Amino acid sequence: MTNKSIKVSVIQQCYSDDIADNKLKISTAIEQAANQGSNLILLPELHNTPYFCQSENHDNFDLAETIPGESSDELSLLAKKHQLVIVASLFEKRAAGLYHNTAVVFDTDGSIAGTYRKMHIPDDPGFYEKFYFTPGDKGFTPINTSLGKLGVLVCWDQWFPEAARLMALAGADLLLYPTAIGWDPSDDKAEQARQKDAWITIQRGHAIANALPVIVANRHGHEEDLSLVTDGIEFWGNSFICGTQGEILAQSQQNDNILTVELDMSQTENTRRVWPYLRDRRTDAYYDLIRQYID
Amino acid sequence: MTNKSIKVSVIQQCYSDDIADNKLKISTAIEQAANQGSNLILLPELHNTPYFCQSENHDNFDLAETIPGESSDELSLLAKKHQLVIVASLFEKRAAGLYHNTAVVFDTDGSIAGTYRKMHIPDDPGFYEKFYFTPGDKGFTPINTSLGKLGVLVCWDQWFPEAARLMALAGADLLLYPTAIGWDPSDDKAEQARQKDAWITIQRGHAIANALPVIVANRHGHEEDLSLVTDGIEFWGNSFICGTQGEILAQSQQNDNILTVELDMSQTENTRRVWPYLRDRRTDAYYDLIRQYID
Repeated sequence: MTNKSIKVSVIQQCYSDDIADNKLKISTAIEQAANQGSNLILLPELHNTPYFCQSENHDNFDLAETIPGESSDELSLLAKKHQLVIVASLFEKRAAGLYHNTAVVFDTDGSIAGTYRKMHIPDDPGFYEKFYFTPGDKGFTPINTSLGKLGVLVCWDQWFPEAARLMALAGADLLLYPTAIGWDPSDDKAEQARQKDAWITIQRGHAIANALPVIVANRHGHEEDLSLVTDGIEFWGNSFICGTQGEILAQSQQNDNILTVELDMSQTENTRRVWPYLRDRRTDAYYDLIRQYID
Repeated sequence: MTNKSIKVSVIQQCYSDDIADNKLKISTAIEQAANQGSNLILLPELHNTPYFCQSENHDNFDLAETIPGESSDELSLLAKKHQLVIVASLFEKRAAGLYHNTAVVFDTDGSIAGTYRKMHIPDDPGFYEKFYFTPGDKGFTPINTSLGKLGVLVCWDQWFPEAARLMALAGADLLLYPTAIGWDPSDDKAEQARQKDAWITIQRGHAIANALPVIVANRHGHEEDLSLVTDGIEFWGNSFICGTQGEILAQSQQNDNILTVELDMSQTENTRRVWPYLRDRRTDAYYDLIRQYID
């Protein structure tokens, strides 16, 4: 890690079924962030399209792309043009019948620094991801860039402290979560508030447990369930950036927005000296973490 | 788990060097909680004495007691008299020269249901616990009681998601943290606020990650550093109880206080059905959690 500070931007947007328009919105926002002097852009999960996993539809596999491929080539050019790192999220076609939910990291020269294939795959009404995505087989490995090692995880991963810890143990300098999460409109307001608060809290917890900044990009806005089974999803926005003690540094509401924060990268070392959790982990007693349940 | 609901109480107090007086305060508060219909009492860490780990003093080993021993006999009688479960915290003398920071659980019949020896031991200026306590050698095993399985952890353990997860995987119905944590008076207010907020946030995170209620008892008040090296510790109180989505159900400020909440024990099952993290843990990819660092 050579950078003393990194200016990071989180792009929060809503997306329609007009892919060309989505891509235009994204490239426009990247340019705006670049003009703010940003070094690193985080985009929401599966930003090129509506969140198509609301229903199980075989035609949606047409949305998948190879990496490299058309979308990654476009993002590569944007990274190179603006000389910044972009963390994007694509529906990856790896082979016929083999698809992943994949984060792609582009370095400042436009090269693909690496990919992360979402390891934990949800499956709930409205979020039928197990139908679309094979769970990642690359493990929890930070991606080396000219800015440092990026611990890129994706959405459902954010509920698993194991994922954040493994990225930290492997030397991640930042944790980044492209996300697509929202409310079921039929839940009451109190339940909706608990869900959103839990989502923020557990990710701040990963920052604290590992003394790493955490950067989260969500989409916002209502998207219909085209199968008409549910009332759709109200994506709750609230993208945020927090510091090494979990302190919120910037947070969006439910609107198109770019958050930009300059992170002091010496804070991880400083925080870990005061709260030296890595010193005291009882690795001799953690073996059962690799069990599904202890029974 | 046969109980549909459990009424839990958290006793928050300040303690002096008058051990008899501390014990009287504790027994009085337990009686008050019993009169409120409580089924389970959680006491702060090392509640019989001031927090003696502020300095390294060999004479302090005189404070340690065997379990069973005088203090555990007294607490046993209180549990039996009021027919409730007590989670206490004692300085355990296991053998000459072998001491632990030990939580003791008394069942409603006064029997010792089990003990937990603090696994993660801190050591920082003002918290010289590695001098006093040998790290626990009993692992992360919930303690069976007539109310359910108690995932008892102690203070520094609260910063380690691994500990909470292992208790959950072993069937804990509740997570409980006796604690003694406070501010260094020389830190500025912003740092103090970040520390207290991080402490609350990460424990709420354990509730969320495991869909378990979390119950935390801290002491409050200023205690001098008898070695005069530091300005002492301002124990920050703020004991709290949160539910299975990490939602705060009750929270103390910085005063003598008893929090009492009736927990609906069906919430863990309900929450895990909506957010089924245990279903999706990638145990095939967690092996490196038993490493100190991945390098």
